[in-house]
Amino acid sequence: MSIIIIHIDLKYPNFHVVYIYMKQSQLFTKTRKEAPSDEVSKNAQLLIRAGYIHKVFAGGYTFLPLAVKVLENIANIIRYEMNAIGGQEMQSTALQSKEPWQATGRWNDAQVDNWFKTSLKNGTELSLAFTHEEPMTLMMKNFISSYKDLPVYPYDIRSVFRNEARAKSGVMRGREFYWKALYSFSKDKEQHDDFYEKIAEAYSRVYQRVGLGETTYKTFASGGTFSQYSHEFQTVCESGEDTIFIDTEKGIAVNQEVYTDEVLADLDISKENLTEAKAVEVGNIFSLADKFSTPIELSYTNENGKPQSVYMGSYGIGISRLMGVIVENMSDEKGIVWPEEIAPFTIHLITFGKNENIIREAENLYHDLKNAGIEVLFDDRDAGPGQKLNDADLMGMPYRIVYSEKSLEKGGVEITKRESGDTEFVDPERVVAYFNEG
Amino acid sequence: MSIIIIHIDLKYPNFHVVYIYMKQSQLFTKTRKEAPSDEVSKNAQLLIRAGYIHKVFAGGYTFLPLAVKVLENIANIIRYEMNAIGGQEMQSTALQSKEPWQATGRWNDAQVDNWFKTSLKNGTELSLAFTHEEPMTLMMKNFISSYKDLPVYPYDIRSVFRNEARAKSGVMRGREFYWKALYSFSKDKEQHDDFYEKIAEAYSRVYQRVGLGETTYKTFASGGTFSQYSHEFQTVCESGEDTIFIDTEKGIAVNQEVYTDEVLADLDISKENLTEAKAVEVGNIFSLADKFSTPIELSYTNENGKPQSVYMGSYGIGISRLMGVIVENMSDEKGIVWPEEIAPFTIHLITFGKNENIIREAENLYHDLKNAGIEVLFDDRDAGPGQKLNDADLMGMPYRIVYSEKSLEKGGVEITKRESGDTEFVDPERVVAYFNEG
Repeated sequence: MSIIIIHIDLKYPNFHVVYIYMKQSQLFTKTRKEAPSDEVSKNAQLLIRAGYIHKVFAGGYTFLPLAVKVLENIANIIRYEMNAIGGQEMQSTALQSKEPWQATGRWNDAQVDNWFKTSLKNGTELSLAFTHEEPMTLMMKNFISSYKDLPVYPYDIRSVFRNEARAKSGVMRGREFYWKALYSFSKDKEQHDDFYEKIAEAYSRVYQRVGLGETTYKTFASGGTFSQYSHEFQTVCESGEDTIFIDTEKGIAVNQEVYTDEVLADLDISKENLTEAKAVEVGNIFSLADKFSTPIELSYTNENGKPQSVYMGSYGIGISRLMGVIVENMSDEKGIVWPEEIAPFTIHLITFGKNENIIREAENLYHDLKNAGIEVLFDDRDAGPGQKLNDADLMGMPYRIVYSEKSLEKGGVEITKRESGDTEFVDPERVVAYFNEG
Repeated sequence: MSIIIIHIDLKYPNFHVVYIYMKQSQLFTKTRKEAPSDEVSKNAQLLIRAGYIHKVFAGGYTFLPLAVKVLENIANIIRYEMNAIGGQEMQSTALQSKEPWQATGRWNDAQVDNWFKTSLKNGTELSLAFTHEEPMTLMMKNFISSYKDLPVYPYDIRSVFRNEARAKSGVMRGREFYWKALYSFSKDKEQHDDFYEKIAEAYSRVYQRVGLGETTYKTFASGGTFSQYSHEFQTVCESGEDTIFIDTEKGIAVNQEVYTDEVLADLDISKENLTEAKAVEVGNIFSLADKFSTPIELSYTNENGKPQSVYMGSYGIGISRLMGVIVENMSDEKGIVWPEEIAPFTIHLITFGKNENIIREAENLYHDLKNAGIEVLFDDRDAGPGQKLNDADLMGMPYRIVYSEKSLEKGGVEITKRESGDTEFVDPERVVAYFNEG
């Protein structure tokens, strides 16, 4: 049994590490030349063609092994950042009882129009979660009674369900989608505001780390009942459904819904500095105050022995949506271009031809890479160079390594960066060091 | 940033590692003295009292941070064993379209009586997955066309839903539960049978590793249409709903449903060697032949160029059920007794009193343990010795370490094994070595 040493930072609890390497001949998915004609979104077209997702119904996609790896890579980045600010991962149910939703008035289809509902044999109605404010608030009555129990920050990473009227945006707006939702429980506005700032910064780190840092803006949006503004994180994207106005100098944006002279003055933004862009909401953070804690009666005893409503917030990131946005923004006519930190594999290793010596040496390189903890997909299929190169471009690993007679004539294996197309020839013996040294 | 080295075997793709350590003062869950009066099962009573689960509705439980750790520890063992025999993890949807279920006749409530169903805005019916044979078979039409594409072994680890008429067994029979399901696609019976044996052995290793090896038996049960017998894995358990007859010498059992003289003769088992016991089904493996592939038309071209139905099997393990069975079987009047490999933490570190020197030293030990990669929960709460010791017994970590003035007088920290109650005193400086050397 080979033992590999990997380095992870254990500073944060519950950090999931997903490691994977694979021979492509064993991967059960296949690429395809054409996307199904009913898929109109670029992200779904590319993800289906490259073997990452399979459509079950409009807006419902199975995540195939390569997508599971991408989603867990994103989820692990989010876990790390949430744990770093005190988040504790749990797993809420998908099925929910109606009582807490009735208490807040959100059970009614007139209030929430994207419910999926179902029922027990005895007729008891249940809902499929589209979010968890209500059940989370109800549950916390078991765990919060004193100011000493606050603040706490439970979060879920799971699939939730929204009965969207239309589903044309692939995994950017699924009827079943994978997301992270954190709920904050604080004793007062001050304690809440402190965390609100921390999680806004954590969100910025998440977008940075998944490769969307340059194109994602903290955006002022309408605030609802409890705050003048709420904050969204919007990624510039041609196929986005939102319109934002970006102040690139300040690194912030304003959603069209609050784009008024009054708001701009309030935010000290000049219209001349703003650029209009289509964007996708990739996260949001809400101050909820006592919107849920008062009707559901989640209170605590404060320092003076008086009962007081818990001050709440909620904070979502669509993980499968992020995957979709990345594919929309990071792809070219040949296929997907994954950012390195979330790619299913760092390297796509390819060998051509029937030269047994070369096939054996490529296999040795594959083992050397995986033994060094470098994630590698080895295209060992009995297929022609054209198909292998096209598939590598379509599937989008950051580095392609070609090990062939021709590459050896030119000085070693050919390493090509998917993003830039830059190529260099490296002695096969030096490949592991090439990646370990960055 | 502290860097820790952990050792994992990367032989298998997609291996998740979950690490966690925590100060108990920060854990948002709390223990409670009494379980809710409507909980009749021992597993739910203990898991609720110890802060592992929260009931949302009958048969629907939220998994709190400690339970997420237990479930992921079990899931990781299963991942390891499934990947080792060629399994590839994916993520099917919870919502399913009806077409493939209509093709096999299982959409009808007369055929399957535990469906949860829902619908899109336009009235299209959808179901909540209780299993995935039909959608998996339909999906594989995209990826299987030749005998060269076989065999393949996709699997899911996710929550599924069963609309049980009653829900009185806690997490042993939830209406929403966490499970692993693998589906095998083979070219013929021979290729299938080879895998069937392999996965039966993998299942035995799983039960061994989660701590149920001694009490779990491969059990002959009724076979259905395609094989004389099916195989279940049954764990002896007082609150089990099944009755089995165990041949301890052969290490196998017979389910009451096939307990006839004819079957015993066929299996070469003597009635005198059998012991009757109550048991819980903790896994099953099914040969399905073409039961699904023929109606859904999943076929391939064989070596002779002829079309042939794919030969299928399916293989389930209830992960949340396993957690429940372990609590039922491994607990005493004081609480849960987790097996070491699936415990949320290896060590429950406790300090008593107000001696600042001792509190500081205990904190140092906590850091030393986590820096050594040993999972530790540090009870740093401002609470009395009685409450801390009772909670440690209730929560069930394999090792309790008490760091107190009294323990130092007796020679160091007091290390107590939860299972045996055996105690020894160890020099604080030697504790990390004590655990690293086993």
